[in-house]
Amino acid sequence: MTTIAIDILGGDEGSKPIVAGLVLAMKKKKDFKAILVGVRQDVEHLIHKKFTDRVSYVECDDVISMTDHATDALKRKNSSAYIAIDLVKQGQADAYVSAGHSGASMSLATLRIGRIKGVTRPAIATIMPTISGTSLVLDVGANVDCDANNLFEFAIMGKIYAKDVLGIEEPLVGLLSNGEEESKGNETTKEAFGLCEKIPSFVGNVEGTDVFNGTCDVIVCDGFVGNIMLKTAEGVADTITGLIKQNLRRSLVSITGAVLMRKVFKNLKLKVDYAEYGGAPLLGVKAPVIIAHGKSNAKAIKNAVFQAISVSQSNINEDIENKLQKYKGK
Amino acid sequence: MTTIAIDILGGDEGSKPIVAGLVLAMKKKKDFKAILVGVRQDVEHLIHKKFTDRVSYVECDDVISMTDHATDALKRKNSSAYIAIDLVKQGQADAYVSAGHSGASMSLATLRIGRIKGVTRPAIATIMPTISGTSLVLDVGANVDCDANNLFEFAIMGKIYAKDVLGIEEPLVGLLSNGEEESKGNETTKEAFGLCEKIPSFVGNVEGTDVFNGTCDVIVCDGFVGNIMLKTAEGVADTITGLIKQNLRRSLVSITGAVLMRKVFKNLKLKVDYAEYGGAPLLGVKAPVIIAHGKSNAKAIKNAVFQAISVSQSNINEDIENKLQKYKGK
Repeated sequence: MTTIAIDILGGDEGSKPIVAGLVLAMKKKKDFKAILVGVRQDVEHLIHKKFTDRVSYVECDDVISMTDHATDALKRKNSSAYIAIDLVKQGQADAYVSAGHSGASMSLATLRIGRIKGVTRPAIATIMPTISGTSLVLDVGANVDCDANNLFEFAIMGKIYAKDVLGIEEPLVGLLSNGEEESKGNETTKEAFGLCEKIPSFVGNVEGTDVFNGTCDVIVCDGFVGNIMLKTAEGVADTITGLIKQNLRRSLVSITGAVLMRKVFKNLKLKVDYAEYGGAPLLGVKAPVIIAHGKSNAKAIKNAVFQAISVSQSNINEDIENKLQKYKGK
Repeated sequence: MTTIAIDILGGDEGSKPIVAGLVLAMKKKKDFKAILVGVRQDVEHLIHKKFTDRVSYVECDDVISMTDHATDALKRKNSSAYIAIDLVKQGQADAYVSAGHSGASMSLATLRIGRIKGVTRPAIATIMPTISGTSLVLDVGANVDCDANNLFEFAIMGKIYAKDVLGIEEPLVGLLSNGEEESKGNETTKEAFGLCEKIPSFVGNVEGTDVFNGTCDVIVCDGFVGNIMLKTAEGVADTITGLIKQNLRRSLVSITGAVLMRKVFKNLKLKVDYAEYGGAPLLGVKAPVIIAHGKSNAKAIKNAVFQAISVSQSNINEDIENKLQKYKGK
């Protein structure tokens, strides 16, 4: 039985969608409990009677807001993120889920729960939709300045997550660069290329287009590039969807068009909707930490909870430690 | 009267679309001549009789292919790119257009034509479609490792191009980063932020989403990030278009849907079609150099020729020199 500590105060929309997501998850899966960190009376009525014995509470009303600095998180000992992370540190919970300040979650997890042996820097991984399925991209925000060794560790951690949690037998790993040839890249990625060649399923450099065409399962970059890549993808998707809608409105005998398109957009949404993939796992810390989007709806939280359970029930952290030891011993 | 040296051997589809593009441009504009560098007999019949006195030829059958190294370009003195660049260097032509090896064009232009005084590194700028118009992004490939001063110079050059060539009165300049706050960025962009604050219309950090939403007119990044951003945008656009078509085929009583959608896609294409914007200007060299996409069709070449004329008839290079002197004197 996995126990998940959930920060119900983080998140742009308050506690409601978070608890609603938990309830959706409980309906589907029986093998976990939750400790909710937040204001009990605000959410207790949202929990169905049959689930009440799987839910406990830690009262808390301080939340690290999006405008706070991540570096202040360590001093905010009564905040929901701090308390939820500490439940994991103390062994009362196995995993952590939050839709709050991602930098705060990251700092707290790294400094309070601690890094896996051999990991220099934890990384945030995110699942991107591709034309044929999904790909895992890391880092997407935690580390803006990376050296070659950081990127190499991200490659190892990403590959193990793809294998142990996503169930891909031999995940292909690519290094995000400005061209496919080995000669492409900036100084750091060129050096990382050399290190990654030790990994048997390393496919070499990949380009921005490869993130979405299913060329490989794991895509490695620093957090600066990862963030820009992610936001660019969002921007293009929004622009195209906007243009299509504009054009449809302008050019079609509208009813017919609108009805026809609704189905297309619904299908499309299934593929590009981030809620579908839940949150972003923080890889490299000693316990499962899932960072959900601030705007997460109930479905996204449900999927983040499922991720937390999957990570918790996998051997990912042991495997990361062993693999890094093996490669670094070489 | 502007004279443009055109490398008609570079380009994935051979000389035909390039010369066809030139003819389209000549139909529209009377104020330029062209010197074609390539195999005369392959293309002479494509030039309408009334334009023959505006076209001259330099025979050449060597081309720097996409698999060649840019660094070899200087030794390939009989290649079409080398000869066309030299026509500009010798003053026989005012501007250069090529759909060939972009790295080769860049090296040749930088080393043979030379940099504008005060410019440390020339940069390739590209025009991106936004929901409300266009934005200029630089660098997109020339310089993978940049320091803060390089980024600052790109900001100045981009702003002057937007003003002098695109006709934007007071172009807004943004620095591509992983968040809007001044505290965001990697070490280099944080330092560049400080330098760019001298520019009156500097809006600060912008994110990947801002490239397409019209937040600013000029977006500055290094060539590594620029390339990944560009390819990501392409990848997402292709994936979404693919998904839409797949879904349409699957779900619609197809004839109706297809007819309705054709119009939408046509409108959409106008907005996202790179051909619409011609080529990418190389900023910071002493003469107008327009680098067109290897897959350029006639329309793209026509627009690249128009760009070459516009740059040629502007004061951009003088303005860049003066502005850099002014800022660096401070």
